[in-house]
Amino acid sequence: MTANGSRVRLNIGGTTFLTYDETLAQFPESKLANLSRCMDNYDDYTREYFFDRNPVLFGFILDAYRKEEIHLPGDICGPTFRKELEFWELSLSHVAPCCWEALYKSDDDVKTVNKLMDNYKKNASIRLTLDNHCSYRKRLWLFLDDPKSSYFAMAWVTFISLLVIVSTVAEMLITIPELGEEYTKSEKQAIDLILAEYNLDNRTTERVYSMKPNPYLTLTITCCHVILTFEFILTFIVCPTKKAYMFSVVRVAVFLGYILFWASFTIESNFSTMRKKEMVLVYLLCKYGTILKLARLFYLSKHIPALNIVGVTFSASISEFKILVFLLGILVCIFGYMMYATEFLDNDAMTSTFVAMYWALITLTTVGYGDMVPYTVAGHVVTSVCAVCGVIVLAMPIGIIASTFNKYYNFNSYVLTHVHLNSEVLKPIAENGDARSSRKAIKVDDRY
Amino acid sequence: MTANGSRVRLNIGGTTFLTYDETLAQFPESKLANLSRCMDNYDDYTREYFFDRNPVLFGFILDAYRKEEIHLPGDICGPTFRKELEFWELSLSHVAPCCWEALYKSDDDVKTVNKLMDNYKKNASIRLTLDNHCSYRKRLWLFLDDPKSSYFAMAWVTFISLLVIVSTVAEMLITIPELGEEYTKSEKQAIDLILAEYNLDNRTTERVYSMKPNPYLTLTITCCHVILTFEFILTFIVCPTKKAYMFSVVRVAVFLGYILFWASFTIESNFSTMRKKEMVLVYLLCKYGTILKLARLFYLSKHIPALNIVGVTFSASISEFKILVFLLGILVCIFGYMMYATEFLDNDAMTSTFVAMYWALITLTTVGYGDMVPYTVAGHVVTSVCAVCGVIVLAMPIGIIASTFNKYYNFNSYVLTHVHLNSEVLKPIAENGDARSSRKAIKVDDRY
Amino acid sequence: MTANGSRVRLNIGGTTFLTYDETLAQFPESKLANLSRCMDNYDDYTREYFFDRNPVLFGFILDAYRKEEIHLPGDICGPTFRKELEFWELSLSHVAPCCWEALYKSDDDVKTVNKLMDNYKKNASIRLTLDNHCSYRKRLWLFLDDPKSSYFAMAWVTFISLLVIVSTVAEMLITIPELGEEYTKSEKQAIDLILAEYNLDNRTTERVYSMKPNPYLTLTITCCHVILTFEFILTFIVCPTKKAYMFSVVRVAVFLGYILFWASFTIESNFSTMRKKEMVLVYLLCKYGTILKLARLFYLSKHIPALNIVGVTFSASISEFKILVFLLGILVCIFGYMMYATEFLDNDAMTSTFVAMYWALITLTTVGYGDMVPYTVAGHVVTSVCAVCGVIVLAMPIGIIASTFNKYYNFNSYVLTHVHLNSEVLKPIAENGDARSSRKAIKVDDRY
Amino acid sequence: MTANGSRVRLNIGGTTFLTYDETLAQFPESKLANLSRCMDNYDDYTREYFFDRNPVLFGFILDAYRKEEIHLPGDICGPTFRKELEFWELSLSHVAPCCWEALYKSDDDVKTVNKLMDNYKKNASIRLTLDNHCSYRKRLWLFLDDPKSSYFAMAWVTFISLLVIVSTVAEMLITIPELGEEYTKSEKQAIDLILAEYNLDNRTTERVYSMKPNPYLTLTITCCHVILTFEFILTFIVCPTKKAYMFSVVRVAVFLGYILFWASFTIESNFSTMRKKEMVLVYLLCKYGTILKLARLFYLSKHIPALNIVGVTFSASISEFKILVFLLGILVCIFGYMMYATEFLDNDAMTSTFVAMYWALITLTTVGYGDMVPYTVAGHVVTSVCAVCGVIVLAMPIGIIASTFNKYYNFNSYVLTHVHLNSEVLKPIAENGDARSSRKAIKVDDRY
Repeated sequence: MTANGSRVRLNIGGTTFLTYDETLAQFPESKLANLSRCMDNYDDYTREYFFDRNPVLFGFILDAYRKEEIHLPGDICGPTFRKELEFWELSLSHVAPCCWEALYKSDDDVKTVNKLMDNYKKNASIRLTLDNHCSYRKRLWLFLDDPKSSYFAMAWVTFISLLVIVSTVAEMLITIPELGEEYTKSEKQAIDLILAEYNLDNRTTERVYSMKPNPYLTLTITCCHVILTFEFILTFIVCPTKKAYMFSVVRVAVFLGYILFWASFTIESNFSTMRKKEMVLVYLLCKYGTILKLARLFYLSKHIPALNIVGVTFSASISEFKILVFLLGILVCIFGYMMYATEFLDNDAMTSTFVAMYWALITLTTVGYGDMVPYTVAGHVVTSVCAVCGVIVLAMPIGIIASTFNKYYNFNSYVLTHVHLNSEVLKPIAENGDARSSRKAIKVDDRY
Repeated sequence: MTANGSRVRLNIGGTTFLTYDETLAQFPESKLANLSRCMDNYDDYTREYFFDRNPVLFGFILDAYRKEEIHLPGDICGPTFRKELEFWELSLSHVAPCCWEALYKSDDDVKTVNKLMDNYKKNASIRLTLDNHCSYRKRLWLFLDDPKSSYFAMAWVTFISLLVIVSTVAEMLITIPELGEEYTKSEKQAIDLILAEYNLDNRTTERVYSMKPNPYLTLTITCCHVILTFEFILTFIVCPTKKAYMFSVVRVAVFLGYILFWASFTIESNFSTMRKKEMVLVYLLCKYGTILKLARLFYLSKHIPALNIVGVTFSASISEFKILVFLLGILVCIFGYMMYATEFLDNDAMTSTFVAMYWALITLTTVGYGDMVPYTVAGHVVTSVCAVCGVIVLAMPIGIIASTFNKYYNFNSYVLTHVHLNSEVLKPIAENGDARSSRKAIKVDDRY
Repeated sequence: MTANGSRVRLNIGGTTFLTYDETLAQFPESKLANLSRCMDNYDDYTREYFFDRNPVLFGFILDAYRKEEIHLPGDICGPTFRKELEFWELSLSHVAPCCWEALYKSDDDVKTVNKLMDNYKKNASIRLTLDNHCSYRKRLWLFLDDPKSSYFAMAWVTFISLLVIVSTVAEMLITIPELGEEYTKSEKQAIDLILAEYNLDNRTTERVYSMKPNPYLTLTITCCHVILTFEFILTFIVCPTKKAYMFSVVRVAVFLGYILFWASFTIESNFSTMRKKEMVLVYLLCKYGTILKLARLFYLSKHIPALNIVGVTFSASISEFKILVFLLGILVCIFGYMMYATEFLDNDAMTSTFVAMYWALITLTTVGYGDMVPYTVAGHVVTSVCAVCGVIVLAMPIGIIASTFNKYYNFNSYVLTHVHLNSEVLKPIAENGDARSSRKAIKVDDRY
Repeated sequence: MTANGSRVRLNIGGTTFLTYDETLAQFPESKLANLSRCMDNYDDYTREYFFDRNPVLFGFILDAYRKEEIHLPGDICGPTFRKELEFWELSLSHVAPCCWEALYKSDDDVKTVNKLMDNYKKNASIRLTLDNHCSYRKRLWLFLDDPKSSYFAMAWVTFISLLVIVSTVAEMLITIPELGEEYTKSEKQAIDLILAEYNLDNRTTERVYSMKPNPYLTLTITCCHVILTFEFILTFIVCPTKKAYMFSVVRVAVFLGYILFWASFTIESNFSTMRKKEMVLVYLLCKYGTILKLARLFYLSKHIPALNIVGVTFSASISEFKILVFLLGILVCIFGYMMYATEFLDNDAMTSTFVAMYWALITLTTVGYGDMVPYTVAGHVVTSVCAVCGVIVLAMPIGIIASTFNKYYNFNSYVLTHVHLNSEVLKPIAENGDARSSRKAIKVDDRY
């Protein structure tokens, strides 16, 4: 770096840079090291090479030649600088590790924006494909499926959602013993006879036949399910994409919910079918499996931005969830096994390793019911280590999940502001996103 | 981007930029693409267009033409750059997604500052409207309502606050059985007679009539309430804006607190009114409803900066609270219902779905009392999933609420420093904020 | 901002800026609006005003005239920019709110550095004042008080610390019933006789006289205290600043710890002094008050960097602690009172409002022992709200405390690096911090 | 700073800077204060000194002379700026504290990258040393130890891992009482006879001999261990670096696990060896010590990136763990001792100080089982303070550990992107990292 080389004069977008020949030889494969290839850019009069690039960014490009490694300012977004590096034919491998964060961190932002935009586009494109072809059946489908298509559709979806909520609340209320009715004397005798015949154990009997469900609630639930089942069948009939419909997890869950309800309904009305304990268990499974129909409410989630972000965060945090589950799994195994080994002689609650593993999870998450507690000194030590480990290990992946949510939450507001401000971005989305400017603005990262 | 176009020379605030004609054609609707419209800015002698703008920011504006999308450095605040874009007639839609955060993030800061300034201004303007018109009644109002108006007012407010605290503490102390007195033999007999007549159940009787409240505490409470009620009525009479007064949630709560106290006082003195269990419940409702008067202390919150920030954070985090309540609600329903379905045959504690939902909430928040615990293997699995879900789902919105509080907390100190340093900003606020420079400094975001 | 004004040419540190006369008139009170005052800086030949300032920062100063408010880039540290504003005679009140964070945030860093440096200086200055005057007494003081003064001093301090730890562990071990000895028959009879005479209640008797403490442990504890008390008296005698010594909270605590130990020792040896239950309680108070001597270990904290940072964080977070205590206090009062009011008829555990307030705190912190749980539906609702509130309210101030600790932790490593790298900074500190360069480097914020 | 000094003209990489002679005299020991030494750089024609450095950074270097202390922009990475300071012969001690963060923060990033790269290199170098020398024994070693060497090796490692998991699960299942078999009548009598002879206490007997372990599970466990032990011995025989093998914590743990299994197996088969309670305890220790073989799975962790990061985070957070353990230790001692002192007269659960310390830890971590709860008012107060302290104190170091994990997690993705993009960086690692460009890119911080 002595001062005896010959000077090179570079005019970058109007700003003059002056350096030595030998400095530019630092990265032999780059464009600046081979300026003779760029004689087109040479101006004989001013004796300088002219390049139409950003002079501020070039300052850092040129400095890389002096320092033998590339440093970039932390406030420059990575994609811009990578384009400069590409133009000047410099390899990314020369970037110093202290600047890797600056180089790559905004890729994450672009990914976030794309994920959110995809989400918006998906919802928008479904709606608009249907807008253009309006047969009778498609109008009905639109009415049943998209609350934003018209005020009547919104009213209908709200009504169906209310039915789902009402029937769920009614099913919850029906479990309250105080709301039930007493069996009449004759009913009681009939039940006792049948039970004696079917050999059910006392406990189950007592629970299942302790009271007669409130008839008004039963009626409400049945009515709701009649309408909901009708709506479900109708939607399926008019649906233009039956295959997608059948493979949608949410819709299959709803379907199962309805099936199970009608199964439990059938069993309930044919009292004599409950001949054995197994049948009773099947009945109970059917009865409580109807909660699956709550999935019906998730149809609506795409219209509630907050829920959308939660969903997107979950799908973006899958690898963090894996870490969490893996770490928790290992710790639960180790602490559960250790606890069983140290306490099983003295502790009646620790009946098997699996029970001890349940204890370990409840301790690791700091829930700490206290239904199983250690009694021995060794058990106390294991518990102490377990509690501290839980606090530390949970903090690690959950911190990342929380900050991922934070990022999506903030970017969602940026996206909404940007889309709101610029109808140009919104429009191409509505036209299935094939306009040029929109794609350019959003998919800039695809080149890397 | 070949080197055969004709060069354009731009002088931006003294710095020369050089580029090709065709580069500027990238965004045809912008000012630079139509330089012929700006012949006023053309200098025949130097052969350059002169614009009186910031050369550093222009570097990035010009670079947008070369890269076909706008990138801005992360350390430039969004509003400045948006002004540049407006001047150069570039649409915001050309900004690349990797730079959206830089473009929009400071809007949030401006919103935060505005919210905090509004809060300060509101408090200041109320005080100063009254300073100017000083009739006898208004002086009294000032004395009763604003502790900062004079030392006497401060002393009075402190005295009233002390009364509130003293009466609350006394009401708490009166519940300690050890501080009560034994009933005399004759009183006991009288009570027993009346109770026999009124048919109250044993448990309630035992609790309510187990001891005679400490007479000194009773006296203290009554005295405090006499003064507080008098102060409340006086304040209402002299209040210049009665309508606003009547619709203030805090004041209505205080009013209800006093009413309920005097109701309970009346019932207590007329022992014979408590004829039925219903009346006893009404009495208890009145007695414990008096805690509403604690709301009186919230008047003071506007003079305690820390409480102010907590309040502002809550009002700014309403959408996060909605997400939290919504997510918790869904999880509580699902886990409560699942737990009831899996455990109700074997677990006496799970008497209904609602009890199971309470259990789910206590588990999700990791409180984990242990009064209801699962007994079956399926129940253990549901509980484990519930505990892990709780930790994850609570972390998401609470992280945002905590960081919102952090931001308000930090900005509050910036605002206080700024207002303290510059009497010019403080002054216009005192004059009801109509000075020009203040509005400019604070409401800069309104244009966007 | 039309193009018909006359141009002004400014040469700022070598870079030329060009603008209009009328642009500079934006802030009439500033230096640039009154350039006629700066004719010294005018160069007739180049027709420009020359100022020896940073051209990059001036770009943003000049831009403020064009945009009517000051925006600064987020990566410039506030103090530098404020110096520029001072030089150009621009008021801080013109800074736009979106840039307040950039303007003020590094003040916090400077405060952090100063607090940490003060801490280091304090420790250093104590040591060095003593180095210069080395009488016999001061040498002894140095030996007793400063472990870093010599290897022998380090060994001595380690020995004393070990004694403190050993005696504490011994006092803990002595509470384990299994390590105690059985009383001999005659001792038992003697105790029974005395107890019968003294009228102690059974429970206390059983606990206090259930076993004879292990004699080896008793001996260890007594020996440790003899040495520790001797060391304490010696240190006090040779201490050069007795007043500061007597008012140090830590040393007073240690002194009390020793006094209480010897008091309990005296009572223990004179068995007949324990005539009444009150005396037994005094004895117990003395016996367990000796834990105060653990404060002796805090002398050492100033030599352990991590503990230092925790201490500095606590002293820097006092206002956050106030918010935490205040918020928790309010919530504890409200939820405790509500719980008592809703449950006291049905819940035997809720014996008074104060017990309910304890329950509220245990729920708010999500500890949730489960010794007091709600039984009524209303109680379940109150508990649910309480649990959710606890999670939210605790997150707000604790997030700030955690990030304060994070900042101090990071800056401590910067300070150590900086001090380590530059003996020049370390030296002035050693000389009681009166050298010029050190003060300049550290107290730069004092001017604001 | 008056305008009467003589001007100096500096050409830094093409940009002209103009300042006064006396400004440059601010730091007398620096290069700019002694420009006469740089006459090589002086150009008589243009009358300026030319230096081939970054003009943007020089702007801030020169500004340091004007402001008497060095300020650097927050977006410049520290290493670059330190190189500039070195070139201009300026001491780091002149950097203002407000800019220390900017100066040092990226050192942490470099440390993070280095730690991650070392991790990757270590794994890569082990593999590649073996690739070059392929004797029969080394091929076998490669097959047994490195799953990435071939598909068969991968299959083998998967098979061994499955065996470990299967045997662990089988050992867990064997503890479930329901899966055990009833002893036949004759076996029962035999056991009873032996037990009577050996004088075992009832409780232990009942637990250990309550059921006969499931024979299929026993068989599975034995088979698995035969194969695993064989594999372990084989690996040890072919291992080229036996010393490293013997001192690897993980392998020693696995070895112990196998030894303990075979010990317990031997005891089990020779029923008569269990003559005394001590022997039974030895047997149990052996039986449950076999969980050590789970360490076998940790061999694999180096091939799972997420686990790698968790491991690296733990090794990078050792000082934070120390703080955590230290703080928790102090708090546990203080609160445990206080609780014992306040409650031991009234609380049967607090049998010794150590039990109270266990209670304190369970409360500080907010697990709160509720098996030990305070009963007195003083105990309630101690508990409340303990719960609040726990929440605050845990938040401080855990926040740092979580953010360290976050940093490693993010940088890992940067490293993977960088290594993936540039085969040049990957290649030198494969060749044991001795290529020049790689070392330069990664070890840039070593000079500081």
